Amino acid sequence: MFTEKDAAAGVTYPQGFQACGVRAGLKKSGKLDMAMIASDVRCSAAGTFTQNAVAAAPVWVSKDILADGHAQAVIVNSGCANACTGEQGMKDARRMAAVTAEKLGCSADDVVVASTGVIGALLDMEKIENGIEMCRQALYYDGGAAASRAILTTDTVTKSAAAEAEIGGKTVRFGVIAKGSGMIRPNMATMLCFITTDAAIAPELLNEALHTAVSYSFNMISVDGDMSTNDMCVCLANGMAGNAEITEKGADYDTFYEVLLHLCQEMAKKIAADGEGATKFLTIHVTGTKTFADAKQVGMSVARSPLAKTAFFGEDPNWGRVVAAVGYSEAPMVPKKTSVAFGGIPVYEKGLPVPFDEEAMKKIMKAHDIVIDIHMGLGDEEATVWTCDFSYDYVKINGEYHT
Amino acid sequence: MFTEKDAAAGVTYPQGFQACGVRAGLKKSGKLDMAMIASDVRCSAAGTFTQNAVAAAPVWVSKDILADGHAQAVIVNSGCANACTGEQGMKDARRMAAVTAEKLGCSADDVVVASTGVIGALLDMEKIENGIEMCRQALYYDGGAAASRAILTTDTVTKSAAAEAEIGGKTVRFGVIAKGSGMIRPNMATMLCFITTDAAIAPELLNEALHTAVSYSFNMISVDGDMSTNDMCVCLANGMAGNAEITEKGADYDTFYEVLLHLCQEMAKKIAADGEGATKFLTIHVTGTKTFADAKQVGMSVARSPLAKTAFFGEDPNWGRVVAAVGYSEAPMVPKKTSVAFGGIPVYEKGLPVPFDEEAMKKIMKAHDIVIDIHMGLGDEEATVWTCDFSYDYVKINGEYHT
Repeated sequence: MFTEKDAAAGVTYPQGFQACGVRAGLKKSGKLDMAMIASDVRCSAAGTFTQNAVAAAPVWVSKDILADGHAQAVIVNSGCANACTGEQGMKDARRMAAVTAEKLGCSADDVVVASTGVIGALLDMEKIENGIEMCRQALYYDGGAAASRAILTTDTVTKSAAAEAEIGGKTVRFGVIAKGSGMIRPNMATMLCFITTDAAIAPELLNEALHTAVSYSFNMISVDGDMSTNDMCVCLANGMAGNAEITEKGADYDTFYEVLLHLCQEMAKKIAADGEGATKFLTIHVTGTKTFADAKQVGMSVARSPLAKTAFFGEDPNWGRVVAAVGYSEAPMVPKKTSVAFGGIPVYEKGLPVPFDEEAMKKIMKAHDIVIDIHMGLGDEEATVWTCDFSYDYVKINGEYHT
Repeated sequence: MFTEKDAAAGVTYPQGFQACGVRAGLKKSGKLDMAMIASDVRCSAAGTFTQNAVAAAPVWVSKDILADGHAQAVIVNSGCANACTGEQGMKDARRMAAVTAEKLGCSADDVVVASTGVIGALLDMEKIENGIEMCRQALYYDGGAAASRAILTTDTVTKSAAAEAEIGGKTVRFGVIAKGSGMIRPNMATMLCFITTDAAIAPELLNEALHTAVSYSFNMISVDGDMSTNDMCVCLANGMAGNAEITEKGADYDTFYEVLLHLCQEMAKKIAADGEGATKFLTIHVTGTKTFADAKQVGMSVARSPLAKTAFFGEDPNWGRVVAAVGYSEAPMVPKKTSVAFGGIPVYEKGLPVPFDEEAMKKIMKAHDIVIDIHMGLGDEEATVWTCDFSYDYVKINGEYHT
């Protein structure tokens, strides 16, 4: 049980969190390009990070900072990913944390660092250090909206949400901001997500809740199958709601997890819908598998099929491409037990096509949001994957950019 | 040691093989849509087939027919895939074999059946049966070129090759025809390949040679990562060259395999280069891995990255996207040991970008054929993967078609 609150407030909706977004001059466009999030007190903290072997410097540094389960602030820049930057990149990422800590009067070991943008270029540390000072001056308790804007790159919309729940008899608040839009021009897709809450929760439980929530949200979307060097999702819990600290599984933990999952799924869906060049938002609901992993594999196989995605762009109910992608997913499949529906209209059942009303189907395909149901008939597990279509503009955005 | 011969002769280059292509009226365009290949005598035969769980009826039937290691003819139609057609589809595929066998005077158990085209529609068996009769009348010893045309769908060029080698003191001939071009309009990518040879070789060795050759050729290309319901590669060896039958590994087998691999790789490269909407042919050469599988995984990860493929379409030397795709391939990677070059020009070495001559790079990127070298620095194994770029026309071809 939770209530959605003012989405624009984002990370500053919970008590005791300030944030801001500033122009440090890292983006040629002159748009906001640095954000800071700071808690009044030290927080329980956890993070999940890209599995890419070419992870960027801020990923390594932030993993290290979160190893003790605590943090107090986040410093983020857009415009430069600080990836493929070797030893100097590591030094620069650590310097970002140290300068931020100095300004905020906290430990450098409590500052999470994130970057997004061009690969292979070093950070302009003079601009970064000036930017951190600007951030310190700009921090305020309603700064969530500015921060949500400063972390964007090719995104077409800001992504934030807020919610409230009762935990241990206290009102606990949650806020989130995220960015992600297929691939970040010029080089990378980056997914960044920062969650704040004034709940009191032990670091190990926060870590477990965050990892589980991410596996059912950000790990269930595919924009183009590429994985960035800079992805991260970080959660800070400052305990200022005054609830008894959640130290074990139970009703309080369940509520906490429920809200966290909801916020992560909201952000994941917004990222999928804002895929580069996207004209459709596709929800792929796979049921009837023996395991969750099988259902996810089927859904992801469809979500990654360029053929299926171009068909939805063309508003063509091309069930053959969907069925073929299910067939090569490597998850168990028995055609005679499989059925597929688009927008609730059956198109394939038990290995054979199903005739459908062309006019009704045209309406389904013309909509922005399309639900694809795939029933495998093999078990009771299910999974939902979110993605977008594949358009001319995807090729344009990613093919016409010149490094 | 082998010599390339007249490619246009294709499957009729070896002794004792006839072929043809006819218009059976299955394609609305009125183009050639049925092909037959027939040997004067029964052949050792082997095939490899799609792994897609939704394999089409002709795949199941042909697997069955080749189970005894022998065949004498191949009957192929384009325009209709006979996929997702249930029991009726199986009956129709078996009927294609039976009618062909009757016309040729061979056993129905010796006729391989292949189809490519629309999914979910039943074959028009009247047209198919008429087509088989037309084929019987059209068969001739120079019909390879017509057959190579009749198996095409969205391909822009025919694909065939021929070669000759000395095996056991005799001149042995080989021929091949293939089709494949990303995805077959309207629904599927299908890769079909038919190889003939007048070599004498035992079925089990032919089977081993073909499976190995396919794993280093057709399994090393990616056009868009989708896998068809109808893919097959079949080889018939009729023994008419008069060499002592190859019944064990040794020099004769090695020569046989060498030619087979060469022909399969030639076809694989032609299919990759003819990918739907392709403007570039990309050779991804991965070296320095501990295993072949690792090298293949790295190469395929790059070959499947829509981001990398759109960059090459845009003639942008965007090494960051290539390095990121290497990083998420899940094969072992140590950035500090990895290097990448485009057309021989280093762009990334030991985890860091390498400055390069812009003009020289522009020349490399403007060419139709681009070689991407990726050295992993972890071992002595290697693999080569072939693919094409990702263009507006891919989206156009696959997005504008309406089923």
